[in-house]
Amino acid sequence: MKRAILLISCPDQKGITASIANFIYKNNGNIVHADQHIDEQADTFFMRAEWDLTGFKVSPDDISKKFQPFAKKFRMKWNLYFSKQRPRVAVFVSRQLHCLQDILLRQRAGQLACDIPLIVSNHPAAKALAHDFGLHFFEFPITPANKRAQEKRELEVLRAAKINLVVLARYHQILTADFVRHYPNEIINIHHSFLPAFAGSNPYRQAYQKGVKIIGATSHYVTARLDEGPIIEQDTVRVSHRDSLEDLMRKGEDLEKIVLSRAVRWHLERKILAYNNKTVVFD
Amino acid sequence: MKRAILLISCPDQKGITASIANFIYKNNGNIVHADQHIDEQADTFFMRAEWDLTGFKVSPDDISKKFQPFAKKFRMKWNLYFSKQRPRVAVFVSRQLHCLQDILLRQRAGQLACDIPLIVSNHPAAKALAHDFGLHFFEFPITPANKRAQEKRELEVLRAAKINLVVLARYHQILTADFVRHYPNEIINIHHSFLPAFAGSNPYRQAYQKGVKIIGATSHYVTARLDEGPIIEQDTVRVSHRDSLEDLMRKGEDLEKIVLSRAVRWHLERKILAYNNKTVVFD
Amino acid sequence: MKRAILLISCPDQKGITASIANFIYKNNGNIVHADQHIDEQADTFFMRAEWDLTGFKVSPDDISKKFQPFAKKFRMKWNLYFSKQRPRVAVFVSRQLHCLQDILLRQRAGQLACDIPLIVSNHPAAKALAHDFGLHFFEFPITPANKRAQEKRELEVLRAAKINLVVLARYHQILTADFVRHYPNEIINIHHSFLPAFAGSNPYRQAYQKGVKIIGATSHYVTARLDEGPIIEQDTVRVSHRDSLEDLMRKGEDLEKIVLSRAVRWHLERKILAYNNKTVVFD
Amino acid sequence: MKRAILLISCPDQKGITASIANFIYKNNGNIVHADQHIDEQADTFFMRAEWDLTGFKVSPDDISKKFQPFAKKFRMKWNLYFSKQRPRVAVFVSRQLHCLQDILLRQRAGQLACDIPLIVSNHPAAKALAHDFGLHFFEFPITPANKRAQEKRELEVLRAAKINLVVLARYHQILTADFVRHYPNEIINIHHSFLPAFAGSNPYRQAYQKGVKIIGATSHYVTARLDEGPIIEQDTVRVSHRDSLEDLMRKGEDLEKIVLSRAVRWHLERKILAYNNKTVVFD
Repeated sequence: MKRAILLISCPDQKGITASIANFIYKNNGNIVHADQHIDEQADTFFMRAEWDLTGFKVSPDDISKKFQPFAKKFRMKWNLYFSKQRPRVAVFVSRQLHCLQDILLRQRAGQLACDIPLIVSNHPAAKALAHDFGLHFFEFPITPANKRAQEKRELEVLRAAKINLVVLARYHQILTADFVRHYPNEIINIHHSFLPAFAGSNPYRQAYQKGVKIIGATSHYVTARLDEGPIIEQDTVRVSHRDSLEDLMRKGEDLEKIVLSRAVRWHLERKILAYNNKTVVFD
Repeated sequence: MKRAILLISCPDQKGITASIANFIYKNNGNIVHADQHIDEQADTFFMRAEWDLTGFKVSPDDISKKFQPFAKKFRMKWNLYFSKQRPRVAVFVSRQLHCLQDILLRQRAGQLACDIPLIVSNHPAAKALAHDFGLHFFEFPITPANKRAQEKRELEVLRAAKINLVVLARYHQILTADFVRHYPNEIINIHHSFLPAFAGSNPYRQAYQKGVKIIGATSHYVTARLDEGPIIEQDTVRVSHRDSLEDLMRKGEDLEKIVLSRAVRWHLERKILAYNNKTVVFD
Repeated sequence: MKRAILLISCPDQKGITASIANFIYKNNGNIVHADQHIDEQADTFFMRAEWDLTGFKVSPDDISKKFQPFAKKFRMKWNLYFSKQRPRVAVFVSRQLHCLQDILLRQRAGQLACDIPLIVSNHPAAKALAHDFGLHFFEFPITPANKRAQEKRELEVLRAAKINLVVLARYHQILTADFVRHYPNEIINIHHSFLPAFAGSNPYRQAYQKGVKIIGATSHYVTARLDEGPIIEQDTVRVSHRDSLEDLMRKGEDLEKIVLSRAVRWHLERKILAYNNKTVVFD
Repeated sequence: MKRAILLISCPDQKGITASIANFIYKNNGNIVHADQHIDEQADTFFMRAEWDLTGFKVSPDDISKKFQPFAKKFRMKWNLYFSKQRPRVAVFVSRQLHCLQDILLRQRAGQLACDIPLIVSNHPAAKALAHDFGLHFFEFPITPANKRAQEKRELEVLRAAKINLVVLARYHQILTADFVRHYPNEIINIHHSFLPAFAGSNPYRQAYQKGVKIIGATSHYVTARLDEGPIIEQDTVRVSHRDSLEDLMRKGEDLEKIVLSRAVRWHLERKILAYNNKTVVFD
């Protein structure tokens, strides 16, 4: 079934829901999902509307133009998506491959509605896995000296492959603000801690030394500030004094895979709106 | 702030959202929450809309009449509520008082938007607690012989007190179908297991003997079929071989309190729609 | 490091711990883990003791003989294991491969201390996966008519490969009591529900129709009674009215993998004692 | 049943378990619980042993003396407790009373094996509650100028009442290092966040602004460093963009009560050993 999805945010006022619902209904669309949220503190309205395009009177190419007057009237930030557009995803990875593997298996199983044409890494570790899945593999070793040059080459690769979403699946390099600027709210990272606790490197070691009784994982959009972008999803698992550092890592891996894959799926399903360094995740 | 809430279900078709949003908008209402759901298997549309009545052009008394044509057109089952109507709740309890105590404390703390004028019990155990909170206490001991007569008296008490919701807070008597018929989807029970596992009596003992590694609690609307009404909320907690039957009971009590109070709060906030022996719980 | 592990159960009485600790200490062993449990209802004592064999005065081959008098005195059921013995595991699977895949990846990553020489299936679906991991693949299609004959052939395969543990990773055939008898507490199944709820077939469909708010998965030893063997591990995840049957299946898959792999790991680490159709799982 | 409990930590070496088990067995004690743990990084051995004193050949008053040689030999830090000694607990609270109320109800229900003779507060809010439960209430308003003087008076109250454990049940004053020194690992605090995230004041507000998807609560022993003492227990609950700051507080209250009461119960049951700013919590 072909569907269109609108993601909207704007200052709250009367009549927004009615206007959008009318726009869809009067053009013969059938809303299959609609959800809205008002942040009363920020006085901001958010909406996600998904409708069936079967019999819709406006052709997909014209929807944006026809919707523009409503958007202008309510001063909306908005995006229009179509279910037939399969986002193109690049996965960045370093030496630990469990998250990459998990994403590739889920994509193959039909759980992630996207194409994954390529893998980028600063290490050769993922080369065989990329090969197994028939994907292009780009190795860009990073040093402080070559970082900007390598990022430039990475950006060229992404551009050439028409990538819409970059997934950092345990990619242990900090992207420059310059790189991030090209993909605003289009880079998803998995951090192996319950942020904001244990930001930075070696979070499992930090957690082990602190003696916490629960560990977590956090997926978030990447911004210029390390590990501080809008949080998309978190989950936790119980640990005890019996768990060694290695146990924390092993338990954490399962969390990382689940938390990252949820975030990627929700992004692909256009369920996430980022604002004020937070997210609305429609369910 | 005065608000109105519509809870709606009807066969799915185009234009329902637009009609409702227009009805509210054209009468100068501001939607503060709106959520909808479509059960594709049952081809049924569900909606909860909450709007601010400040400046609303239709007086509360006339809203139902004005809305009736829309309801008829879409063959809606619907209910209209007003935030100023505080539901009146009766709590039924037997000898274990932790759930009753929890509800009374939450109500006093402002977490439950209702009045609780009275307690009903088949035992005297809750009498002192009712007294502490300044509530009427009705003791109706139940035997197989007097059950119907006692239920009749209970119903009179409920009617006289204009009760809208009956909460069974570990009430260890099975209500007759006759009693239940007076309060359709207006009796909430807490069952101390993860239903449908361990229905009936002594669920903790059943769980202990079975050796489960997780126990649960379930709140549900009461129907004529014991422990089989629409589930509103469930939660679970981990147990191990180290936990005795008493430990299961102690851990379970905390679950029961939380699971029951969530169900009661959601009911009072008009967030629950029951259909096909299941529930939609809008969040 | 070479280690020995004793798993013991016996009627509770004074001096058991002292006897075992003395046996290890006087022969120059260093206990690295020791845990005990008393089931007061069953009046039964359970113990797991793990010690370093470096410098141990009794050779591994003689430990059983030397320990025998203590075992006899306290009427112990007991088993002695050595860390250098890597259990040999056969995985049985039908058409859904996520649990098999998960186990193979964990084994390769060093999370499961075992060898997995072969896969058995009643379908050809896992053939390619077995090939990718370099494993023998045995396809035994099952019909009511050929079941006993096929099981006989399966048992021969297992015997020839010196299999110590059979893992049913979504194997959708019911093993006969005859088959099960050959591997007492040595067959681990994953059932895709929170047992005892939704035993039997199609548990996700049952859960969907019931409208539960939480789903689960259960790993257990297989006995002659379907889905009723001693539970090893369970876990749960929250669902809502928004989740379709397919969503339940997808969420459930992640649970199944984690719950099954925990059970297999604990079994391989000799942490599980089954008794009275329950388990003690030492941590 | 009268029981003795030994809590021990010492450098790891051979024979510790055997020595302790022998000491108990040879004096005709029956071990009812025994658990041990080795922190391999710290090369430290921990043990908790609980035995029945019925028929024990050494009188309670002499056990310490008789055990001393073993303690010396293995350079143990150790404590001996008796089940007949009911610890005496003082609860400190400020204006929010839910944790205090929860503790008092649990104590009354027999879930906490202690006496609670008195409440201390810097506010009058808890006065009525103390009265309801028949407890002494001491109000010590705190200002920067009078803090040391007031703490001195508090210490006198605690000393006079022979208090063994201080529970900070949302007490919003920072105790001085001087005060803390009098009750090493004998002051338990509840912090309303998932530490180390959101230490300090207004953790719910911090969590709300950060947009986390899970909130937590942490109970810990109080040391001179604010919110940095050894963590005893943590738990978490899921939140979403729909949750207002008030919702976070309400959800958090339930967590706080459960997490604090677990820590207090485990402390009273002598299940906690603190070392290296972490805890071993035997189960």
